[in-house]
Amino acid sequence: MKILVTNDDGIDSVGIEALQKSLSEIAEVTVVAPRQEQSAVGHGITMQIPLRVTEYYKNGSFFGYAVDGTPADCIKMGIRNIMKETPDLVVSGINHGSNTAINIIYSGTVSGAREAAIMDVPSIAVSVTNHKPKEFSYAAEISKMLSLKIIEHGLALGTLLNVNVPDLPENKIAGILITKQGKSKWDDTYEKRTDPYGKDYYWLTGSMMEVDTELDYDQVAIKNNFVAITPIQFDLTDYETFEKLKKWNIEKRKNENPK
Amino acid sequence: MKILVTNDDGIDSVGIEALQKSLSEIAEVTVVAPRQEQSAVGHGITMQIPLRVTEYYKNGSFFGYAVDGTPADCIKMGIRNIMKETPDLVVSGINHGSNTAINIIYSGTVSGAREAAIMDVPSIAVSVTNHKPKEFSYAAEISKMLSLKIIEHGLALGTLLNVNVPDLPENKIAGILITKQGKSKWDDTYEKRTDPYGKDYYWLTGSMMEVDTELDYDQVAIKNNFVAITPIQFDLTDYETFEKLKKWNIEKRKNENPK
Repeated sequence: MKILVTNDDGIDSVGIEALQKSLSEIAEVTVVAPRQEQSAVGHGITMQIPLRVTEYYKNGSFFGYAVDGTPADCIKMGIRNIMKETPDLVVSGINHGSNTAINIIYSGTVSGAREAAIMDVPSIAVSVTNHKPKEFSYAAEISKMLSLKIIEHGLALGTLLNVNVPDLPENKIAGILITKQGKSKWDDTYEKRTDPYGKDYYWLTGSMMEVDTELDYDQVAIKNNFVAITPIQFDLTDYETFEKLKKWNIEKRKNENPK
Repeated sequence: MKILVTNDDGIDSVGIEALQKSLSEIAEVTVVAPRQEQSAVGHGITMQIPLRVTEYYKNGSFFGYAVDGTPADCIKMGIRNIMKETPDLVVSGINHGSNTAINIIYSGTVSGAREAAIMDVPSIAVSVTNHKPKEFSYAAEISKMLSLKIIEHGLALGTLLNVNVPDLPENKIAGILITKQGKSKWDDTYEKRTDPYGKDYYWLTGSMMEVDTELDYDQVAIKNNFVAITPIQFDLTDYETFEKLKKWNIEKRKNENPK
């Protein structure tokens, strides 16, 4: 089995090392990851400037390829250019910080996995729910278990699994749940500051407005110490509104010739 | 009526000027747009560095606020900081180049409108199907018409309209259709080049693999000179796979106590 690994915290992060190590027990792993942190880049890709790829070493051994782009760039580059064949699976992570509810939209980690799904390669995004996680070992185990499950059962084309793991040792984990993307959103504010030259600047800040209450939403599951596994896809069509818009009377066909 | 306008081509682009002018006929328009081009940034937001906002003038008159961030940043900044109240509508565009099928995922224009939908403000993303459009006037008319329709009918919370307009004068337009996000994707390749210092670099290139054939897909509609209006939303949960995963036997609850 061949697995391509990326992340959004950068190739030098601790999370990707834990992931690479764990998956190497079951597969041939190729790491292609951003040279620098790419958190909250969303599904950006690099088109206006060229990309560079360099070999990256950790502790004196070859670890993987560093790309000066986004996680989505890394997946395109990894599959089209670096690997000699399409991998069986892509795993993105282990992210430092959860990617649940609306954060899925902003996440670089998820977009790396989603780019794989777009390219018809099954994929997993894995995050630990703490920006400075104490524990990667259980998340690494879960990544390995799910990789094997995906190879066993297959995933529908265009689907990926977004996995969030509480930052706890295994014996404190409440269990594993299949979940949905939560509805919680950010209540954003901008903190206004003045620089040493008298000019204003703004920092984005805010807090999550928790609206979900049921355990089958990702955000609620992780709050209750469960691992949350949410299947996601990229057909954004709102089919309900599609039907409603048909009644807005805005469709027109010039050459219509009613008989 | 108050409308907030953004784009991803940058505040100095021709498309946003056409949009601002057209919408000013029906509403009080506030422009908050990226200082620089932000194409293909996906739904990135700026968190690692602070944002700056400056007043921007066109032809000697105040035009709007330039933000050194992404379209999503502009919407957050516009709503939370610049406008004194939540706008009735957000319109993002007019983009130079279509945003159909898989490109919706990568689009900065769409992410600007989507950020509004996340903030419960109805929104429209408008694009003209040519990177150097000859015609903005019909797209501007369509934006105005749809703005009024949305105010009249309302849009479900979390939904936005993604509108693509062929780069043609009105008399060459075949009509207007309500459409779905197409399934067409990019067949990417990287063009390898060598810089003057002997180092390799890569340009992303490729062509769109057209897989849709029916007129109710955005990509097919615009190819046939129709305006394509696709309602999109941001719940990415794959509900079909959600049900399937339940049968993978990976769910666990440690404290389950079956009676």
